[in-house]
Amino acid sequence: MTEPLPSWREGAGKSAILGFVGRVTAEDVPVEDRIAVFDNDGTLWCEKPMPIQLDFILRRLVVMAEHDQDLRTRQPWQAAYTQDYGWLNDVITQHYNGDDSGVRVLAAGVLAAFADVTVEEFEARADQFLRTARHPTLDRDYLGCSYAPMVELLDYLAVNEFRNYIVSGGGRDFMRPISHDVYGIPRQRVIGSGVSLVWNHDGRSGAIFRRAEADVLDDGPEKPVQIWNRVGRRPLLAAGNSNGDIPMLQFAEAPDRPSLRLLLRHDDAAREFDYVAGAEQALELAEADRWTVVSIENDWATVFAPLPDQVR
Amino acid sequence: MTEPLPSWREGAGKSAILGFVGRVTAEDVPVEDRIAVFDNDGTLWCEKPMPIQLDFILRRLVVMAEHDQDLRTRQPWQAAYTQDYGWLNDVITQHYNGDDSGVRVLAAGVLAAFADVTVEEFEARADQFLRTARHPTLDRDYLGCSYAPMVELLDYLAVNEFRNYIVSGGGRDFMRPISHDVYGIPRQRVIGSGVSLVWNHDGRSGAIFRRAEADVLDDGPEKPVQIWNRVGRRPLLAAGNSNGDIPMLQFAEAPDRPSLRLLLRHDDAAREFDYVAGAEQALELAEADRWTVVSIENDWATVFAPLPDQVR
Repeated sequence: MTEPLPSWREGAGKSAILGFVGRVTAEDVPVEDRIAVFDNDGTLWCEKPMPIQLDFILRRLVVMAEHDQDLRTRQPWQAAYTQDYGWLNDVITQHYNGDDSGVRVLAAGVLAAFADVTVEEFEARADQFLRTARHPTLDRDYLGCSYAPMVELLDYLAVNEFRNYIVSGGGRDFMRPISHDVYGIPRQRVIGSGVSLVWNHDGRSGAIFRRAEADVLDDGPEKPVQIWNRVGRRPLLAAGNSNGDIPMLQFAEAPDRPSLRLLLRHDDAAREFDYVAGAEQALELAEADRWTVVSIENDWATVFAPLPDQVR
Repeated sequence: MTEPLPSWREGAGKSAILGFVGRVTAEDVPVEDRIAVFDNDGTLWCEKPMPIQLDFILRRLVVMAEHDQDLRTRQPWQAAYTQDYGWLNDVITQHYNGDDSGVRVLAAGVLAAFADVTVEEFEARADQFLRTARHPTLDRDYLGCSYAPMVELLDYLAVNEFRNYIVSGGGRDFMRPISHDVYGIPRQRVIGSGVSLVWNHDGRSGAIFRRAEADVLDDGPEKPVQIWNRVGRRPLLAAGNSNGDIPMLQFAEAPDRPSLRLLLRHDDAAREFDYVAGAEQALELAEADRWTVVSIENDWATVFAPLPDQVR
């Protein structure tokens, strides 16, 4: 048998994972309870300089502004059209400081960007974008921006009869077309944010349309609720990287059975990015609550899978 | 190999099922697309003289009225406490006639009945009720009120690598504790109505509490939407018995691949119940849309599994 987790360096992170899985199998924890939940942006793939989905949306806003001059002086179309990332950064900084007025302006644009298309059409557009667009600075396709050590962890858990779920603040229907190819996670195990959908029985088979209205914002205290709605069990393992993952990590605490909480720390400017904004409280709680902090710099021998031309 | 569907009589219903599954396997339809969705009340188990969950709720309202005299003169507690089924029947008749004022009064009581308990506590109460309470007229436990031919159909589909889902207007968390034992359907494949839930991190592991507020009412046009939210695919097979199942049945239409829509007709007063109220429109559409109508009287050799003392 191949040694598991080859992209992980020996250390506390790898030891915690092997110890946890060893306990689960040694204690013969029922297979149906072997549930693992993973945040996506910043936990399974790179979220800087902006979440991949935001790039997808901004490109759509640009196209909308190209067709409608009036939009070019309205946010967020103006920022997208003029590539004014300062405005976007201000929105995010305000959000971290508790002011969501900018987020609401951004959200209204985001919701308008794909309103009144069918779920199948939206998925086709997301799929096309994700399989062709490139990361702006890492010199690789977006689908190459998943973290190789985390993909190894997903595989290792699956081999040990875990069911892995994505539990993302990002859009569920954005990730579904690529979740199996990138993570081995089938679409029915993708939990995330979503817009209101409406059934319309035009034509023989009918269709489901997206509305310009949020339905679920799968972040913070909503993550355990959505896990319950979709899975109906407490997970044994939860992995995240930001304050929005705190309740999900707490939900995976279990005094009477093996459990593992992983918090990724982005501390590797050379190979990925170095930032703590949005994760300050989670990093503080990690020590008190005995979560395992995974340092990208120290715990990972490899961050991204080698590019095709680098594979020997 | 055992002959499949022994409780089904030879006829159009059984032929349609065998033909459909034969086509799916002959055409080698990908396993991930083999999705089958089933309404629960009146499709997988008996819903007369009242839905099983309504009995569960009425018993809880009685207990509440026993502890609080003021409730005894307020609906729906009054009807529950005095066993005034006339009031309940009026509510349902009004509902069929497009007047939901009574439904709103009933719903407020239903939502109050289990407010502010944790999801685990609610599940324990549902489990206890379902495993002990008896049907008022059929001389059998509620768990014995599932339709034997439908359980055989679920098994037959599972053997042919289908994933079966419950898609019920009833409460998701009410059915989950027994769905595997009764139908072989694991809890993560139970889709249904639900109340708003709230995460509360009191104590180490936190808990999810029920609120007295509806979240999802999984009926009519909401059924295809919830199937998309949870599964992310169109089903190949849908089975229902009432007008609330029409959009779900339409959603399973597929011109380019095998599909099967089953509509159960309750026409057997001797062995089950004989009623069309709430299914008039569905029965009309069945003919136009080439759905397979399953007559309990004609298509089923057995309705319920034999009682233990009747098994030789």
